[in-house]
Amino acid sequence: MRSDQSVNAIQWQDNRLRLLDQRKLPLQEQWLDISEVDSVVAAIRDMVVRGAPAIGITAAYGVVIAAKQRRQQDAYHWQQSLQQDFDALAASRPTAVNLFWALQQMKTALVNLSDEADPIDQLLAVAKDIHQQDRDGNRAMGDYGAKLIAGSLESVNLGSVRSESAKSVITHCNTGSLATGGYGTALGVIRSAWREGIIDRVYADETRPWWQGARLTAWELQKDQIDVTLIADSVAATLMAQGKIAWVIVGADRIAANGDAANKIGTYSLAVLARHHGVKFMVAAPTTTFDLSISSGAEIPIEQRGEEEVVSVNGQRMAPENVAVYNPVFDVTPADLIDAIVTEKGVVEKPTSRGIAQLMGATA
Amino acid sequence: MRSDQSVNAIQWQDNRLRLLDQRKLPLQEQWLDISEVDSVVAAIRDMVVRGAPAIGITAAYGVVIAAKQRRQQDAYHWQQSLQQDFDALAASRPTAVNLFWALQQMKTALVNLSDEADPIDQLLAVAKDIHQQDRDGNRAMGDYGAKLIAGSLESVNLGSVRSESAKSVITHCNTGSLATGGYGTALGVIRSAWREGIIDRVYADETRPWWQGARLTAWELQKDQIDVTLIADSVAATLMAQGKIAWVIVGADRIAANGDAANKIGTYSLAVLARHHGVKFMVAAPTTTFDLSISSGAEIPIEQRGEEEVVSVNGQRMAPENVAVYNPVFDVTPADLIDAIVTEKGVVEKPTSRGIAQLMGATA
Repeated sequence: MRSDQSVNAIQWQDNRLRLLDQRKLPLQEQWLDISEVDSVVAAIRDMVVRGAPAIGITAAYGVVIAAKQRRQQDAYHWQQSLQQDFDALAASRPTAVNLFWALQQMKTALVNLSDEADPIDQLLAVAKDIHQQDRDGNRAMGDYGAKLIAGSLESVNLGSVRSESAKSVITHCNTGSLATGGYGTALGVIRSAWREGIIDRVYADETRPWWQGARLTAWELQKDQIDVTLIADSVAATLMAQGKIAWVIVGADRIAANGDAANKIGTYSLAVLARHHGVKFMVAAPTTTFDLSISSGAEIPIEQRGEEEVVSVNGQRMAPENVAVYNPVFDVTPADLIDAIVTEKGVVEKPTSRGIAQLMGATA
Repeated sequence: MRSDQSVNAIQWQDNRLRLLDQRKLPLQEQWLDISEVDSVVAAIRDMVVRGAPAIGITAAYGVVIAAKQRRQQDAYHWQQSLQQDFDALAASRPTAVNLFWALQQMKTALVNLSDEADPIDQLLAVAKDIHQQDRDGNRAMGDYGAKLIAGSLESVNLGSVRSESAKSVITHCNTGSLATGGYGTALGVIRSAWREGIIDRVYADETRPWWQGARLTAWELQKDQIDVTLIADSVAATLMAQGKIAWVIVGADRIAANGDAANKIGTYSLAVLARHHGVKFMVAAPTTTFDLSISSGAEIPIEQRGEEEVVSVNGQRMAPENVAVYNPVFDVTPADLIDAIVTEKGVVEKPTSRGIAQLMGATA
């Protein structure tokens, strides 16, 4: 029985935000109950919650929590003082644009508050709507992506390294329920394709340095009874050379107007390798991931995190003291290495500025 | 002061083999004293010592130890019973051909033993000679490689992604003193190039799943005061796209007659990425790494190691229980992605069967 009961890692319960602490997975399923905005900022910064859509949803609930706190402090001027909470939430992670999009939605809601109802209830309704839209969007994305894979498998290019029987996919980082409002982006596509019997196995990159693949993706896919094989990141090329891989399917943290996509470090490598081996490369992301204000990936800020993630594992040192470390945690894949961007509104094949503008404009 | 006092990780002292336990580095420098051949086999299998040339040297000393044991048991028939020790040593690791080459040298020595002197002394002399030849060869390789880099930097292809000022290199796994009889293969080339001021920085891939880069290469280069920056394996593509990298320099565990080279998993990815970015790709290996009995890399046996290396770090579980794992620890880089194979006997640029045969034949 192929099911897809995916975990709901972001919950609003009893006027508090409940987050599954992703740093503790897969060994412990520990939940944090949060009722202060500072703790929301810390949860995003310290990666209790991660994944571009999940960060946006968490930040939206963070605004609700902040509004409650500010209103208790000062029932008249709370909206002005709330501005610093927006700033703090915006500063929590730099690369994922969904964060800024969600905060903008909440700002718009704040401006449009009705006098008819409780303002906190109104803000909460918007946050819940952002959450629900993300879940619904991921289902739609899953259908679009699965259909694209099915079509490509029927018309395999026999000239490529990829064999006719290649029915496996590689994914990187975690783009599942844990990274979104539920179901997942790239992992949503994989869930849909698996459920329909289109793919036969998922190879999950372990995804150094934060182990999202080993800790989160393997855990999610196991729960869903989807056949998953864990690999060190550098094994992907060998699998492609063996002709086992039909598609690489990844998410994105920000997509520029021309289709260049920032995603977890290691994504760009996979895109180059996929092109070399004639393997297809899909980016699955909601339209909230597009940043049409920037023309190319060169303008996307790439977060650098501390050396600790690279030199230590669970506090145990893996490298000599005082060694220099370079730890950019995202990279940019140029649009010309992407075969398709799959969104909840449809698919852009061979993405260009024009194709993306059409997708966004036609449905705006 | 740019020095190169590299560690001597394989030592023969007081009729025993002393090995630096590479599993404990960089946190502890712990030595094992070995006087039984079973322990030599275990040391190779369990990676107390690793690196193709170092495995060969260790196996040669292993034969000396085995011969002593067998001769003590039976002074007349010891040479016959020694055959099973050769077999056990040959079965310790499958991919590195230097192991089989060194054992063949020792077999030849056994056949040619003179009655004039103690047989153990004669075998020890051959083992020491294998060790010394490797050290000397690495110095020669270092000079050839450094010269090649210097020449390439003078004639940079302006059409490539690589910028004119790219003076850094990426290396993978550990190919230094720890992996050889001393100085190193790829790391020997890097040492020589650094000493001559040709390169300005070494980016060391951490090299999952066994962390040879984080634990061993970073440690060796720090000791040598060579500027090293540690990166997760998947960061290499970003550095290449930034135009910082002039060369990727790696070792090899076995090179087929046509130049296809097996090396640590991740090497093949680097070769594809290097070609995509116009970065040069060098394999540095002694001629003992060539296996002219096989025509291509497809015939090289690729060792699969246990899942433990992937799912756990220092005994701490990183992935859910019972997840499937694929852990091939070597991959094969096709000759057409290699710009140069650097040996102690000279350089083969754009390697082909013919070029390799010439190198080997001209100096046989």
